Amino acid sequence: MLEEILRKVADGELSPDKAKEKLATFENLGFAKVDHHRKKRQGFPEVIFGEGKEPSHIIDISRAMMVKKENILITRVTYEKAQVIMEQLPDFQYDHTSRTLFMQNSLDSGHYKGYIAIVCAGTSDLPVAEEAAKTAEAFGVEVRRFYDVGVAGIHRLMAHIDEIREATVSVVVAGMEGALPSVVGGLVSHPIIAVPTSVGYGANFQGLSALLTMLNSCASGISVVNIDNGFGGAYNAVMIHRIANQS
Amino acid sequence: MLEEILRKVADGELSPDKAKEKLATFENLGFAKVDHHRKKRQGFPEVIFGEGKEPSHIIDISRAMMVKKENILITRVTYEKAQVIMEQLPDFQYDHTSRTLFMQNSLDSGHYKGYIAIVCAGTSDLPVAEEAAKTAEAFGVEVRRFYDVGVAGIHRLMAHIDEIREATVSVVVAGMEGALPSVVGGLVSHPIIAVPTSVGYGANFQGLSALLTMLNSCASGISVVNIDNGFGGAYNAVMIHRIANQS
Amino acid sequence: MLEEILRKVADGELSPDKAKEKLATFENLGFAKVDHHRKKRQGFPEVIFGEGKEPSHIIDISRAMMVKKENILITRVTYEKAQVIMEQLPDFQYDHTSRTLFMQNSLDSGHYKGYIAIVCAGTSDLPVAEEAAKTAEAFGVEVRRFYDVGVAGIHRLMAHIDEIREATVSVVVAGMEGALPSVVGGLVSHPIIAVPTSVGYGANFQGLSALLTMLNSCASGISVVNIDNGFGGAYNAVMIHRIANQS
Amino acid sequence: MLEEILRKVADGELSPDKAKEKLATFENLGFAKVDHHRKKRQGFPEVIFGEGKEPSHIIDISRAMMVKKENILITRVTYEKAQVIMEQLPDFQYDHTSRTLFMQNSLDSGHYKGYIAIVCAGTSDLPVAEEAAKTAEAFGVEVRRFYDVGVAGIHRLMAHIDEIREATVSVVVAGMEGALPSVVGGLVSHPIIAVPTSVGYGANFQGLSALLTMLNSCASGISVVNIDNGFGGAYNAVMIHRIANQS
Amino acid sequence: MLEEILRKVADGELSPDKAKEKLATFENLGFAKVDHHRKKRQGFPEVIFGEGKEPSHIIDISRAMMVKKENILITRVTYEKAQVIMEQLPDFQYDHTSRTLFMQNSLDSGHYKGYIAIVCAGTSDLPVAEEAAKTAEAFGVEVRRFYDVGVAGIHRLMAHIDEIREATVSVVVAGMEGALPSVVGGLVSHPIIAVPTSVGYGANFQGLSALLTMLNSCASGISVVNIDNGFGGAYNAVMIHRIANQS
Amino acid sequence: MLEEILRKVADGELSPDKAKEKLATFENLGFAKVDHHRKKRQGFPEVIFGEGKEPSHIIDISRAMMVKKENILITRVTYEKAQVIMEQLPDFQYDHTSRTLFMQNSLDSGHYKGYIAIVCAGTSDLPVAEEAAKTAEAFGVEVRRFYDVGVAGIHRLMAHIDEIREATVSVVVAGMEGALPSVVGGLVSHPIIAVPTSVGYGANFQGLSALLTMLNSCASGISVVNIDNGFGGAYNAVMIHRIANQS
Amino acid sequence: MLEEILRKVADGELSPDKAKEKLATFENLGFAKVDHHRKKRQGFPEVIFGEGKEPSHIIDISRAMMVKKENILITRVTYEKAQVIMEQLPDFQYDHTSRTLFMQNSLDSGHYKGYIAIVCAGTSDLPVAEEAAKTAEAFGVEVRRFYDVGVAGIHRLMAHIDEIREATVSVVVAGMEGALPSVVGGLVSHPIIAVPTSVGYGANFQGLSALLTMLNSCASGISVVNIDNGFGGAYNAVMIHRIANQS
Amino acid sequence: MLEEILRKVADGELSPDKAKEKLATFENLGFAKVDHHRKKRQGFPEVIFGEGKEPSHIIDISRAMMVKKENILITRVTYEKAQVIMEQLPDFQYDHTSRTLFMQNSLDSGHYKGYIAIVCAGTSDLPVAEEAAKTAEAFGVEVRRFYDVGVAGIHRLMAHIDEIREATVSVVVAGMEGALPSVVGGLVSHPIIAVPTSVGYGANFQGLSALLTMLNSCASGISVVNIDNGFGGAYNAVMIHRIANQS
Repeated sequence: MLEEILRKVADGELSPDKAKEKLATFENLGFAKVDHHRKKRQGFPEVIFGEGKEPSHIIDISRAMMVKKENILITRVTYEKAQVIMEQLPDFQYDHTSRTLFMQNSLDSGHYKGYIAIVCAGTSDLPVAEEAAKTAEAFGVEVRRFYDVGVAGIHRLMAHIDEIREATVSVVVAGMEGALPSVVGGLVSHPIIAVPTSVGYGANFQGLSALLTMLNSCASGISVVNIDNGFGGAYNAVMIHRIANQS
Repeated sequence: MLEEILRKVADGELSPDKAKEKLATFENLGFAKVDHHRKKRQGFPEVIFGEGKEPSHIIDISRAMMVKKENILITRVTYEKAQVIMEQLPDFQYDHTSRTLFMQNSLDSGHYKGYIAIVCAGTSDLPVAEEAAKTAEAFGVEVRRFYDVGVAGIHRLMAHIDEIREATVSVVVAGMEGALPSVVGGLVSHPIIAVPTSVGYGANFQGLSALLTMLNSCASGISVVNIDNGFGGAYNAVMIHRIANQS
Repeated sequence: MLEEILRKVADGELSPDKAKEKLATFENLGFAKVDHHRKKRQGFPEVIFGEGKEPSHIIDISRAMMVKKENILITRVTYEKAQVIMEQLPDFQYDHTSRTLFMQNSLDSGHYKGYIAIVCAGTSDLPVAEEAAKTAEAFGVEVRRFYDVGVAGIHRLMAHIDEIREATVSVVVAGMEGALPSVVGGLVSHPIIAVPTSVGYGANFQGLSALLTMLNSCASGISVVNIDNGFGGAYNAVMIHRIANQS
Repeated sequence: MLEEILRKVADGELSPDKAKEKLATFENLGFAKVDHHRKKRQGFPEVIFGEGKEPSHIIDISRAMMVKKENILITRVTYEKAQVIMEQLPDFQYDHTSRTLFMQNSLDSGHYKGYIAIVCAGTSDLPVAEEAAKTAEAFGVEVRRFYDVGVAGIHRLMAHIDEIREATVSVVVAGMEGALPSVVGGLVSHPIIAVPTSVGYGANFQGLSALLTMLNSCASGISVVNIDNGFGGAYNAVMIHRIANQS
Repeated sequence: MLEEILRKVADGELSPDKAKEKLATFENLGFAKVDHHRKKRQGFPEVIFGEGKEPSHIIDISRAMMVKKENILITRVTYEKAQVIMEQLPDFQYDHTSRTLFMQNSLDSGHYKGYIAIVCAGTSDLPVAEEAAKTAEAFGVEVRRFYDVGVAGIHRLMAHIDEIREATVSVVVAGMEGALPSVVGGLVSHPIIAVPTSVGYGANFQGLSALLTMLNSCASGISVVNIDNGFGGAYNAVMIHRIANQS
Repeated sequence: MLEEILRKVADGELSPDKAKEKLATFENLGFAKVDHHRKKRQGFPEVIFGEGKEPSHIIDISRAMMVKKENILITRVTYEKAQVIMEQLPDFQYDHTSRTLFMQNSLDSGHYKGYIAIVCAGTSDLPVAEEAAKTAEAFGVEVRRFYDVGVAGIHRLMAHIDEIREATVSVVVAGMEGALPSVVGGLVSHPIIAVPTSVGYGANFQGLSALLTMLNSCASGISVVNIDNGFGGAYNAVMIHRIANQS
Repeated sequence: MLEEILRKVADGELSPDKAKEKLATFENLGFAKVDHHRKKRQGFPEVIFGEGKEPSHIIDISRAMMVKKENILITRVTYEKAQVIMEQLPDFQYDHTSRTLFMQNSLDSGHYKGYIAIVCAGTSDLPVAEEAAKTAEAFGVEVRRFYDVGVAGIHRLMAHIDEIREATVSVVVAGMEGALPSVVGGLVSHPIIAVPTSVGYGANFQGLSALLTMLNSCASGISVVNIDNGFGGAYNAVMIHRIANQS
Repeated sequence: MLEEILRKVADGELSPDKAKEKLATFENLGFAKVDHHRKKRQGFPEVIFGEGKEPSHIIDISRAMMVKKENILITRVTYEKAQVIMEQLPDFQYDHTSRTLFMQNSLDSGHYKGYIAIVCAGTSDLPVAEEAAKTAEAFGVEVRRFYDVGVAGIHRLMAHIDEIREATVSVVVAGMEGALPSVVGGLVSHPIIAVPTSVGYGANFQGLSALLTMLNSCASGISVVNIDNGFGGAYNAVMIHRIANQS
């Protein structure tokens, strides 16, 4: 890309001023292939982190995206905020558990083979697990949910382990002691994205306990994202799933 | 005990001075049944925490105990320190893995039914696990060892789970992410004493990670002792095992 | 259990499909003796952790249990939530101090000898101590309460120490500096389950101070559960008490 | 696998005892596809975590592997320990920077397309980066190194960004403030495995600073492994690279 | 005291039962000289920690004290709670800044020579400083206030240093960086009780910063109480002031 | 100043009493050149930290300043508090984003050459960045804003880097991973005041992550102020900018 | 003092230059009454913190003091360093346990009534306790030692409680869980200086556990100094003891 | 710079390939004005962080610089490492206190007016203070040292305050409680770069206490660098001093 611009300048096709502009801005420098990529394949969503954003601000961003016929996913939206937004933009659908808003503006979703496993320790971890699930689905990837399979009842996990093994990648969500990724990691041969949650109390220290557990896992093939970051867990998994489909 | 002393004073059997002395001292106040208990049953060991104690100091204490024909267990003894002690007291036997010294001065060990399970995640946790095992054995309790059964290879634990279940109580030792007690806790119905170890690196923070994991366990019936405290884990287990035999 | 299933398959009594189903599910694998155990002995409660669960969800679970004539204990229920539940299920009784709901569906409670001592440092620790007490009682175990006997007035503890000594096991609850288990541990010869509470302020750091104190106790025979985990403290104690009665 | 075993029992091909044995052991239960997988494809290494293991222990394990003609990678080996091992097993090659030992027993390495980018902030982070590089290479994956491209001189990173973008996955290693993964994450569209190192001093707290930075990255597509865990970073990357080649 | 009881038993003046009762209860064992002391000298207050106590509970305790004509100090009372209490017990006086309630039931206050200096860094630390001041005054000790003399304007402190030097003891209250006790400690020759406050934000961590500063003071003669513990600071100072007057 | 006072005493121009008074008070001791300085140059503001101060208190201070015709800046004022203050003092102007109140009482602002760059990572950091910007402007210094140029999209920063380089000093504001100052520090040759913000969640720990990142920056020429301390960042920058203009 | 200097200037007894010099230097400003005080009363020691100081540096300081016939106490001196110093200055006496050097250059020690109690939990805490004891003795104050009276054997403390109560002030030294000051605080009516030690392991975190315990003590009249700061504990106690004797 | 390159391409003065090369490399992109700047003004040193670098590596870098006649400063060099280096490069001079090596290859040092004040709390902080001083001097800036002026003896600081005030900027170095920058900050009107040191023990936590104190300073105009980072403190000060001289 850089070469091309410079060649055009040399050929007089591009003035130095124009070239400078190009080099200084986003798309020209090619610094953001991901975004570029997105626009080419219809069905890829724009994702907005809703926490701390005013409803009016979210509405404005959304309208700009609707014009481009893009699907829109908004994470971390309270029910109250969602109500305000949906009054203006009734095409959004709100999901209570994951606290996400989604609007389908393009039917051309991704056609990926295989699925991502979302594995979750307890029912209290559901909001984070569902944020992950909804994110992956918004990206057009099939998700299979394996919930309430915490390590204190290892048989529940065992009952589903064959199906988990067939996934391309697992997002494993757990709070409290956060031991689930270690156990799953010992049973499957694909990458695991571990998501600690802040579920727990006392010496859990808002998810620190689960986070440390996951970082110290004695199983290989586990990497970790921030506490309660269901979106981040899914985003990493989608990236890997795309690789599986690309090649 | 208090009543008895007072009655004797009233009866003139005991002078107020003698009574005061009795009340103010250890044995008279009956404040230390455990210790008293020990002396009654031959074969119970005296336990010395060896770390930070001079060899000469340990030798003096040991000699005093040898006179009373008590078994002696010394924990946290380096090989070098043990050598110095054994030159003077050759009846001691040193165990390299657990870093303990033991001297059998009484053959009248406990006659307990059943056994304690010592379950251990990885080979690096062996020193702590063996400190627990040697402690329990010094107290005359049978120990069964289930080592290298960490959660990253859950099948290894499963292969032994029936035998672990038959124990009165389990001491579960784990470093790194410390998830083993949660998994064992979900598979057995007896109490578990969890012992975090300082094995690991980086975000393990010298055992803090394993400690927090165990305190936050979603399995019931798990209580925790200090990091690397193999002795403490075994001591709690022996207390419970004794209850199982007493009643 | 595994052997039995396999033998039946070999004998043709069980089809491979049925066997697989059995092995993959909870009861068949025998992974949860505790639960199984419970059902055999009437009077054992099901325990629900009420925090973070919707009233409607709790009501549904409770109804399922009521059908089986099981006693039900729900912990961590606010008064407001309890009101909603009791409108639908008036047989529940709410205890304000421990914030528990209990419903007696079976009169066949446990017939255990002896009692558990619940020892508590200050009046502010009462909610945690009572959560422990109500839990043990729901399991059919007799509880004796020794409240407001903190170490700053050691005489208050001394006045009751003989009765505490006669217990099978003590649950010792303390916030602030959390020193009570160490003192009790030096005066009794049975196991102590220490429960730190988040009572305190400033450098207490929501119970961290009490937790560290208990883990570092210089007294032997003390193990620790999570901050404010009255239920966990009692559960461990009940397990030990059951051992005392079983044998 | 389970189905197959049960069918064989039903068909009388397998006695219940044998079946039980199979189900209870590692290979039979199929709980460890990764390991199984390894044996099928020659050239896959066995990896030994050398820290805390005695040389004699390492030699024994290595000899067992040599019989099977497997390649062997040992991480975290000091020069002194390596010398002792190589006296017995001269076929090992020691790499000073990464502190790894490697022995090539099979020439049939993996034939993967593409490469993994190992990106590294400063020269002090080299040991961790090279542990990652040597690990990936031991697994038969091509590695391209981009070292000393820390964020304080962003132009150095820019000079190589096109080649980094063409990788399947990046392992980004950084100590001190640990900002490099965020910057790389904003410039590439493939997954990033971030490895914090303990390089730094003062408020770095042995890598905690870099770890927190990476977990809090505002760029998407970044997941994190433990401090100084170069092996873990590479292992995750190899898993993803394998997916890219499998499909 | 113990001797006396035993002598009485020997003399038949006291039955063993009565003696046991005496020994087992608070006043008889003489374990609480402070409390005993208080009752002898009229004017000494009973102090109630108001936080977390129900108004009705406080009212009951207060009524019991009023009967004994004791002065009553209640700390950590919100305005709302104070209103409820004062409706029932209108003789209480509420102080907004220190959040204390005080009731004068005895005019016979202490007749101490000299005064305690309460030194305070900033206006935001006033609630803690005033809790200290009101506590000392309730104990009958004269207090001199030196407020808003933080180290960022050292001249303000210098303007009052002579008067501070004449105090028996200083209670030095500071939040944010908590440096004031070190500076005062270098300028006076009497003991300093340092009280860190939770005033500040960000890296202050709710008073941790000020607490650590005070514990690490390079000035001698400084000891520290818990964060925001104005009562504790004053109580220590009063104890020392009493010693100055006793001798 | 000290010399002058003493000379006057020697000359009989000043009585010892008056001299003592002078020496003991603020202006005479000359301990506060900054403040003195301010009064000489009209247009310099008095700054009030509004958090935790009562509206009535702020109004009183403001009125005293208005008499002296000084400009007034109040930081950390909620909208509600601002409303109360502006009812009494309608000349104040409230800025929502920075939560500051400003009143222009003197038109004689500073006449400084050049500008300060306020660089900000994300839109959520705006309140802190704007507190810095409004502070610098209140001091009469020109500010140029470079917002939403976080490291995850490095091209956005590059587009403005020439203009940032021309500033005298940069205040760089960032939450989450806080990497922006390191990157800017590598691209400019003037001092950088780094301001971590508490924006983020999970392992961000209220800004601790960003703070540690900035303290550990591998770029030179970066110094750090407290979390969310936009005022402090600007104050340091203004001090440096003044030096650039003074000389 | 300030007044006096100014009066002399006015009277012509002092030139402005001399006065300035006086005001600017230590003794003239009277900023260090403590030090001044010391010199007046012979027998008061100079105290040198030996850690991190070169032997030659310590020897130089000591020689300067010897000229003034002052007693000298040096804390934190290793045996090796002491040897080097004593070769040059053979009048020093080294105490192994407390790691202190003392030289008696003046026989005129303090003539204080009463004593300070040094109370100590375990034998491992002896170095800190003896540093406190030697410090107090160097200041001419009588010390009574109550060692090895930790809370896990409360009877040992009870046996000495009457003698402890008669002290003016107690220095209570404890590591591990650090509960001893709370218990002593509930049994005596004089001030307690609590000294946490770094004795312990695991979750003790180098004395943090004991420190937090002491700061959170539920007993009144306890203030705390830094971890292992035996000197500081004694210094505070001596200050209070002096007050008891002064008045 | 970008414009110029593009113009040259358009004018045919530069081929696209050459331009790309230029844009992709350090000097062409102009990303490192600081470095560029340095080369222009002779006398500016290259600075090498010596910790963790092999002597041979340092020697190689140094030789490369010697060719360019640049002054060389190496920080964090132990005496042993310095010996090895100086055997090869005898022109280096080693400073024991600051642990720096310096080689003067250019006599053309900076000609700056004014000076930087290096203010230091205690003698133990000298290594960090001298690292700062030597760094500033290596950059050709005059330094004035004000050492051993800690807050516990505020008069020592006062004796020098006028001279400190005349500096352009102060680097204030302090360990233990770290209060010195706050006090200096209240007495001067120029910027202060605060450098916490790891000097102290116990609750100092390797400098964390001093770091937090400085970040929370109630004085304005203070910014902070990493613990023990004397180089960083000086580098920031030199940058500001240069601004004072440039304008």
